[in-house]
Amino acid sequence: MRGAVLYAPGDVRVEDRPDPVIVEPTDAIIRLTATCICGSDLWPYRGVDAAEGPAPLGHEYVGVVEEVGGEVTTIRPGQFVVGSFWASDNTCEICRSGYQCACVRRVLMGTIGTQAQLARVPLADGTLVATPGMPEADLVPSLLAASDVLGTGWFAAAAAQAGPGRTVAVVGDGAVGLCGVLAARQLGAERIIAMSRHAPRQELARRFGATDIVTERGDDGVAVIREMTGGLGAHSVLEAVGTQESMLQAIRATRPGGHVGFVGVAHDVALPGDLLFDSVVHLHGGPAPVRQYLPELIDLIWSRTIDPGKVFDLALPLDEAAEGYRAMDERRAIKVLLQP
Amino acid sequence: MRGAVLYAPGDVRVEDRPDPVIVEPTDAIIRLTATCICGSDLWPYRGVDAAEGPAPLGHEYVGVVEEVGGEVTTIRPGQFVVGSFWASDNTCEICRSGYQCACVRRVLMGTIGTQAQLARVPLADGTLVATPGMPEADLVPSLLAASDVLGTGWFAAAAAQAGPGRTVAVVGDGAVGLCGVLAARQLGAERIIAMSRHAPRQELARRFGATDIVTERGDDGVAVIREMTGGLGAHSVLEAVGTQESMLQAIRATRPGGHVGFVGVAHDVALPGDLLFDSVVHLHGGPAPVRQYLPELIDLIWSRTIDPGKVFDLALPLDEAAEGYRAMDERRAIKVLLQP
Repeated sequence: MRGAVLYAPGDVRVEDRPDPVIVEPTDAIIRLTATCICGSDLWPYRGVDAAEGPAPLGHEYVGVVEEVGGEVTTIRPGQFVVGSFWASDNTCEICRSGYQCACVRRVLMGTIGTQAQLARVPLADGTLVATPGMPEADLVPSLLAASDVLGTGWFAAAAAQAGPGRTVAVVGDGAVGLCGVLAARQLGAERIIAMSRHAPRQELARRFGATDIVTERGDDGVAVIREMTGGLGAHSVLEAVGTQESMLQAIRATRPGGHVGFVGVAHDVALPGDLLFDSVVHLHGGPAPVRQYLPELIDLIWSRTIDPGKVFDLALPLDEAAEGYRAMDERRAIKVLLQP
Repeated sequence: MRGAVLYAPGDVRVEDRPDPVIVEPTDAIIRLTATCICGSDLWPYRGVDAAEGPAPLGHEYVGVVEEVGGEVTTIRPGQFVVGSFWASDNTCEICRSGYQCACVRRVLMGTIGTQAQLARVPLADGTLVATPGMPEADLVPSLLAASDVLGTGWFAAAAAQAGPGRTVAVVGDGAVGLCGVLAARQLGAERIIAMSRHAPRQELARRFGATDIVTERGDDGVAVIREMTGGLGAHSVLEAVGTQESMLQAIRATRPGGHVGFVGVAHDVALPGDLLFDSVVHLHGGPAPVRQYLPELIDLIWSRTIDPGKVFDLALPLDEAAEGYRAMDERRAIKVLLQP
């Protein structure tokens, strides 16, 4: 099969790799209908995260089940499935509490690599959710978004307790931040402030439900949010970047007793204890338990209630993955879909 | 009147100070029945927090109202009252959301000083809660505890979502940590693990409801908590110290999706973003909104359901405040009550 591999920072190649096979009896093999490049893939691509190349790339996926192991009971060949970037058994105590991202048996799909024609999915019964049938082509990008960016934005909005009567601010205008806007809207937030200085992203934010756009950042951004909220700060702030600046911006823009939901993968972040103490905010986040939300998200997509696939503004054949990485790295594209 | 003043680290003096007067029409003057020394008073006493001496000391208080300003409508002279260490109007949007510690008009009682015979209490109607009548003498220590350590321990337990079916661990065996044990018990927690290596504090923890004692600290303490919880960590962890070590211990002892309630005043704490991200815990804390809990706490004390006054293991005349500070600094006393 063809699959994308990172050889060194900036060096993405698509090459022939061995077809995956069933390793554990709980595995499934899927043929990918679509896959994509994540903002978090840019960390190793840029050399910020150390990468021991050659390493397989990608952790987002939708596709059709080809084969299942002997202990797989609910997932069947021929089903169209969506899964999270964490494989999880969905039965352990942590999974049952809604934190499948911390399943005691979890496997990170990024170590397997889904920017490929085929992928092995561990713990198939727990990890994969089948759609009601084969999706029409226009639904595929949205189902693919559910695999990570939509689920992650949803978790950010839920962790920030976005809901009726609440003013929500979103720090980060990448695909996750934009999906956070969409999630906040679905969860009933009254006012949704997207923080973005890029016209196409502002436009998508508005389409997804943002009521206001703020272009200022850092302390200036915080000052504007406070001004818009009677000096108090937003009830809910979603953080979808992962830097020290974005975390501080999120915490400072939140009112006392308010909630910060952070999902940007943390890089060189050290939160001052006195800020956390004095701010009296709630802080919750981390790798999203996407699996928790998949059934609901698939329903919303299947019924065409939401259209998160709009985050893909560039689609390329898998063999052109390197160009996809360049486009995202240079912010020419919000999110790149790859067609295997 | 007599009042305690900090001249320099380690130099506490009780001296004649001017009687307080009504400054704002929303003020009340109270005659203190009892006051006390807080663990947080030790920070300036030890020179860890810079203190511009001479500075008045103390922020915990119960007493009888002597006089009220012209705009005070519900609090009346002659009432026995309890208040929080934050004066708050209890009417602003932040107060109404339950975060009186961040009231838009808040005043820190520590800047006024309550280790004295008399004290001015700003925003009296919002700040003070009258008891059903004059308390019997044995209830006074418990009512005084409600002014800070009980309310703060209660907030820690509530922030950590201590409750039925939950395993709770408490980091810190000072008065606040011990009151956190009591609060977790009242909130219905199933198992309460006090982390302490001091026999008298272990004993009080058991009396307040601890089911287990763990003497290990740091990584060892975390390992023991994990071992006791099937490898997962506690559902709820209360942090009542305020150091880097105690915060890391609390976060690492919490299971994914669990809750950390932190109330130790943060000193030189910087939380690594990747730990917060990977731990997937909820983090909430800061200065406790004690005012929110006062009516309930007074009821529980008045009905003799709880006896938090047991945290006072040394009572001294106000004039001997310096000895009280020494006793707490040297950990000879858990908490010192001062009799004005």
